[in-house]
Amino acid sequence: MTYCLAIKLNDGLVFASDSRGQAGVDYPSVYSKMYRFGLHQDRLMVLLASGSITTIQAVVNRIRRDLENPGATRSLNSMAYLFDAATYVGEISVMEQEQHLAAMQRSGLSAEATFILGGQIQGQPHDLYMIYPQGNYIMATLDTPYLQIGETKYGKPVLVRMISPETPLEDAARCALVSLDSTMRSNVSVGPPVELAIFRRDVFKLEHHLSLNATSAFYETLQQEWGRGLRAAFDGLPRFEWENGTDVPAS
Amino acid sequence: MTYCLAIKLNDGLVFASDSRGQAGVDYPSVYSKMYRFGLHQDRLMVLLASGSITTIQAVVNRIRRDLENPGATRSLNSMAYLFDAATYVGEISVMEQEQHLAAMQRSGLSAEATFILGGQIQGQPHDLYMIYPQGNYIMATLDTPYLQIGETKYGKPVLVRMISPETPLEDAARCALVSLDSTMRSNVSVGPPVELAIFRRDVFKLEHHLSLNATSAFYETLQQEWGRGLRAAFDGLPRFEWENGTDVPAS
Repeated sequence: MTYCLAIKLNDGLVFASDSRGQAGVDYPSVYSKMYRFGLHQDRLMVLLASGSITTIQAVVNRIRRDLENPGATRSLNSMAYLFDAATYVGEISVMEQEQHLAAMQRSGLSAEATFILGGQIQGQPHDLYMIYPQGNYIMATLDTPYLQIGETKYGKPVLVRMISPETPLEDAARCALVSLDSTMRSNVSVGPPVELAIFRRDVFKLEHHLSLNATSAFYETLQQEWGRGLRAAFDGLPRFEWENGTDVPAS
Repeated sequence: MTYCLAIKLNDGLVFASDSRGQAGVDYPSVYSKMYRFGLHQDRLMVLLASGSITTIQAVVNRIRRDLENPGATRSLNSMAYLFDAATYVGEISVMEQEQHLAAMQRSGLSAEATFILGGQIQGQPHDLYMIYPQGNYIMATLDTPYLQIGETKYGKPVLVRMISPETPLEDAARCALVSLDSTMRSNVSVGPPVELAIFRRDVFKLEHHLSLNATSAFYETLQQEWGRGLRAAFDGLPRFEWENGTDVPAS
């Protein structure tokens, strides 16, 4: 399993992903689900991926080959709009899935993969796209300024409560880390290290890119402080009317 | 959809459930998913239910009929052990599902239902059982002292972090309310009122039973204080090393 999320803010974009590979109990491995590309200086794009690792790696390889090939008719560098890039990734993904579909189905396996593509092309707004296994996409909106793929539910409540387009980049990044931490505590098939990238709008390089192990000082402090803060939040909740010292009736 | 949970603590049991009925956009309705029974004074049991409402209502009706029928060979009052009661509920559930299985399948519908049965029979420990649609069950354990049915993921992280067997009943009840609130904010098919029941071990009546609307003063205060507490927890998280005033390296 996988958990990746991306948040669209007025100030830019935040990307976060876990790194748990095959989650079989006897073969846990680590691989990154966050892909960056060496693009022209007028653009920046980050790709997050969930699903069949074979499809994902084939898609990323084709994206990279197209970028290196001067004769390629299309590449992330040739796209005029970010949604063109999303469509391109979707088409490659469908093509790769179809190539192995029959064999995968015979083995009862799925070749499906889902992607989040985020970034900016100079002169245009920054944006986020979720690209479905069918090749189509949806965009992040003002009302739902984040996209999630993989094991999405455990980490959603904290996003619902905390994220709005006005949230500063670093606060959103901390929120993404908490969202990932909540997921890792509930589902062992989502695991460290946690990768985090921060993109400030109109700055066409990633302002920050971190890979945090469970034992990194920052991550440990974050976990401890979050646990302490939650405990304090609980202590601040109202007492039921039958408990001492309450003045709020229970019903 | 539905979200019900029950927590097993050293001091007793906490039960909580939402009340959203058919979640079709044009036919939202309210029905309770928490069933209590008039049992002998040596026992108390509470049933939570998720799944096909037709199966659930048929199961509850049969349980009630058996309780009222002096000639019934088995009823919740005749069981010597709580796990006998869980087996009995499972058998009734399977029987009810099978009765309509062919017709339901023709219509592409599921008759499955999942239950949580919790309570105590005098002289025995209090306990919790989750009864699967197949009629078998699992029990709550010291390591996982809560059981959830329905839309379980959104509300799990707060349980993972906050609940242990030593948690006082009222704290666990507040935690259950937060868990339900997180779920309702993430999934509109889980809705109010929220029902809450608190059972103190060796006291063979429900110490408290509440039905909280979204507009009840207590619930509103709880939501506000939880939001405030979460915000404070966020403000207490460590800064990244590139932010001002930090002394914790980011990686």
